[in-house]
Amino acid sequence: MASKPAAVIGIYPGSFDPITNGHLDMIGRASRLVDRLIVAVLRNERKQPLFSVDERRQMLAEAVGHYPNVEIDSFEGLLVDYAAAQGARVIFRGIRAISDYEYELQMALMNRRLRPEIEMVFLMAGEAYSFISSQLIKEVVNLGGNVAGLVPEAVERRLKSRLLGSG
Amino acid sequence: MASKPAAVIGIYPGSFDPITNGHLDMIGRASRLVDRLIVAVLRNERKQPLFSVDERRQMLAEAVGHYPNVEIDSFEGLLVDYAAAQGARVIFRGIRAISDYEYELQMALMNRRLRPEIEMVFLMAGEAYSFISSQLIKEVVNLGGNVAGLVPEAVERRLKSRLLGSG
Amino acid sequence: MASKPAAVIGIYPGSFDPITNGHLDMIGRASRLVDRLIVAVLRNERKQPLFSVDERRQMLAEAVGHYPNVEIDSFEGLLVDYAAAQGARVIFRGIRAISDYEYELQMALMNRRLRPEIEMVFLMAGEAYSFISSQLIKEVVNLGGNVAGLVPEAVERRLKSRLLGSG
Amino acid sequence: MASKPAAVIGIYPGSFDPITNGHLDMIGRASRLVDRLIVAVLRNERKQPLFSVDERRQMLAEAVGHYPNVEIDSFEGLLVDYAAAQGARVIFRGIRAISDYEYELQMALMNRRLRPEIEMVFLMAGEAYSFISSQLIKEVVNLGGNVAGLVPEAVERRLKSRLLGSG
Amino acid sequence: MASKPAAVIGIYPGSFDPITNGHLDMIGRASRLVDRLIVAVLRNERKQPLFSVDERRQMLAEAVGHYPNVEIDSFEGLLVDYAAAQGARVIFRGIRAISDYEYELQMALMNRRLRPEIEMVFLMAGEAYSFISSQLIKEVVNLGGNVAGLVPEAVERRLKSRLLGSG
Amino acid sequence: MASKPAAVIGIYPGSFDPITNGHLDMIGRASRLVDRLIVAVLRNERKQPLFSVDERRQMLAEAVGHYPNVEIDSFEGLLVDYAAAQGARVIFRGIRAISDYEYELQMALMNRRLRPEIEMVFLMAGEAYSFISSQLIKEVVNLGGNVAGLVPEAVERRLKSRLLGSG
Repeated sequence: MASKPAAVIGIYPGSFDPITNGHLDMIGRASRLVDRLIVAVLRNERKQPLFSVDERRQMLAEAVGHYPNVEIDSFEGLLVDYAAAQGARVIFRGIRAISDYEYELQMALMNRRLRPEIEMVFLMAGEAYSFISSQLIKEVVNLGGNVAGLVPEAVERRLKSRLLGSG
Repeated sequence: MASKPAAVIGIYPGSFDPITNGHLDMIGRASRLVDRLIVAVLRNERKQPLFSVDERRQMLAEAVGHYPNVEIDSFEGLLVDYAAAQGARVIFRGIRAISDYEYELQMALMNRRLRPEIEMVFLMAGEAYSFISSQLIKEVVNLGGNVAGLVPEAVERRLKSRLLGSG
Repeated sequence: MASKPAAVIGIYPGSFDPITNGHLDMIGRASRLVDRLIVAVLRNERKQPLFSVDERRQMLAEAVGHYPNVEIDSFEGLLVDYAAAQGARVIFRGIRAISDYEYELQMALMNRRLRPEIEMVFLMAGEAYSFISSQLIKEVVNLGGNVAGLVPEAVERRLKSRLLGSG
Repeated sequence: MASKPAAVIGIYPGSFDPITNGHLDMIGRASRLVDRLIVAVLRNERKQPLFSVDERRQMLAEAVGHYPNVEIDSFEGLLVDYAAAQGARVIFRGIRAISDYEYELQMALMNRRLRPEIEMVFLMAGEAYSFISSQLIKEVVNLGGNVAGLVPEAVERRLKSRLLGSG
Repeated sequence: MASKPAAVIGIYPGSFDPITNGHLDMIGRASRLVDRLIVAVLRNERKQPLFSVDERRQMLAEAVGHYPNVEIDSFEGLLVDYAAAQGARVIFRGIRAISDYEYELQMALMNRRLRPEIEMVFLMAGEAYSFISSQLIKEVVNLGGNVAGLVPEAVERRLKSRLLGSG
Repeated sequence: MASKPAAVIGIYPGSFDPITNGHLDMIGRASRLVDRLIVAVLRNERKQPLFSVDERRQMLAEAVGHYPNVEIDSFEGLLVDYAAAQGARVIFRGIRAISDYEYELQMALMNRRLRPEIEMVFLMAGEAYSFISSQLIKEVVNLGGNVAGLVPEAVERRLKSRLLGSG
């Protein structure tokens, strides 16, 4: 049983289409637990994202770029292969609902099979963010609802501009 | 947003009455994520444990005492106060079932309220250990069942001796 | 803390594509709890409904139009904005499965954020209707199964006519 | 299908040992939905409550006695029989976790069997209160933790006095 | 992979304190799937049952004794050891709620570890019985409620006599 | 209450696109419980399967064709109608996650309504297979991951050939 190495690198992967205040809360928590945290945007063209990978990276950079030990990156392919290539030992995931939990459990067991040396680590979302998801945010903006306080201000402006043609 | 400090201390609390192979799996995983891991036995006289705190600490020491960055301790009172007194930043918890998850979520939110600077971190139990609990192990031994492979050998001997009067 | 006003208006929203006996049960229960109940059909063209909004309103009118304090309406946009425009204080939702519950919880917290003065209220479906959904009804009819007793007779005839080309 | 009568009476039952801010939130929400709300303390000697029924009623009266349409009462026996004796049409319950939901579903179906004319109605607890229960509050106070903001101030003083012998 | 033997024996274990109509429904279903079904009453003195093992066996015999391939028995110790001693290949369990499911899953995996040749098989309770448990039945009778239609008539009489001193 | 007939026929339905080791485990368990087990591939063109029904039947035949009491078939239309036409009394389903369980419960109650004489019977997947699904297997192969040990070798080769153009 080897002990912990000098520097622990963690990955916080996601679509971030767009980043929400719930994601920001998770990044803050995770960044305090590792030496270096890589926030990694999944490239997945089939999902027809609202924002391009570059736009998502830019919104992330505006929101957390000043954290001293946080970097923004993007990836495609198997998450655990990307993590191994980065020398990461930890992958952070947030869990809110039971259905999240089940999907995450299935993925964690598969990932453990593929790369047993990388640990999936789960943080619980703050209760103030338990109902926020990028998908729901987009639906609410699309129907004319107000999402101030649920996403960073710059993200709110981009959402309105993209979805409502104003801004 | 402060970055990670030089050394991260983690707590893995529990009753460990007695330690199982599922606990051992968790301790191995958690020890690779922090600089120092304290396995902390809860003193709770009202729960009428099968083994005393000293016996439980001894079984833990036999099983994981040789890990270079793992220590055994015991505590009473609020878990987050104990963690703060140890300078710990992380408390590890294993989750298996949905009902675990709900209880853990409730405790995590309360702990965050009491000590926001300490993070509850969840690891998923390996699928081979998903059905093992100290309580079920004791019930099976009590009814004459075989728990070899589910607890360390020394624990199996102590269980038989304590519950069945043999050994 | 203001007390209850003279007349409470409730909304029971849904797709009702088509109405089932489970919906009828819910409308009966909800109508006894408020002064006026508005059954509100969601206009959502993207979901490619089997029946048009007008057809769905007609089937609802045939089934519950004679209830003295029940009205049929349709809406688009944010549910809570529609409810506020109607002067409604309560939105009724039925819950059956755990997965319903999670989605409903997320929506209820978002709706509370958007319009704190409107209350989401949950009624549990009768056990005889716990397995009925509009979607499953359509699948069963499509495969030649018999749904008598699960939807009103007029709805059964329309389903057969629309899906099987008979009547 | 009879329509709603002139005045709707609702019951909000519980142990309230002691009342928490989560209960207060529920009472506020429920009181806006009915003409008269009876907060009903369950007498159950077998549960060995921390506070007597009289003490619990007094704490409730201090917290919500000024609401114009809220009354405090206590009961024993079947909840639905008590509700029927009061002329109530609605019983309010708060749900937080999935396990709450399952128990509540079982009770709702049994109650419907016993008294089909009384409706169980569920409100979702605000996310700020999702982790608060009377039981957890008592455990935290007992271990020296701070529950300010989770219960009314007068309740906090009584809890300290009863559990810690100070005040 | 051996094929099925000439005669399959199944066990339906439980406390049956007392038998409910939900148990009866399960016994009917299970008896059609095996050559011989043994309904096995668990002897567990620590649980302080309302009815003795002999009384529970008698109530079962009155309710299902006439089924041609059903027998009544009782057991103590490990369920899988009892099943093996009977030459049973199948143990039937009914599942209703999610929490049942989790406990049953844990037990099934432990039983598979102890006796891999015995299969745990799950049947879903009919929706009409989804809210009935022996425990809830006893509570309702104790508080003066009517359980006609939820248990056999002879059981209803015994419950009233035992709990209310009448009958 | 009729007793069990001379020969029990069971159906194990699924998409099997493709068969996994989890399916194999289920077929082995189910085949020991009935006289004849029919593994039935669902024809559903709308789901855009990776392998044709013939390919899926061939992979099944290679994997379980030598079991003495197992046959491979395919069907379309209502599952319970197909089962009735085969003279089957039992339909086997495996359950892993809670979300599986809910969907299965809904289907089981609908099927019971359609054909009360056919029993849905649930077996729990072995813990080693709890994270394997045909869908996840395809995603992992598509992203270059290794699924050896999760599907039969012949299936692994076909997956690579179909998805990666190698073999």
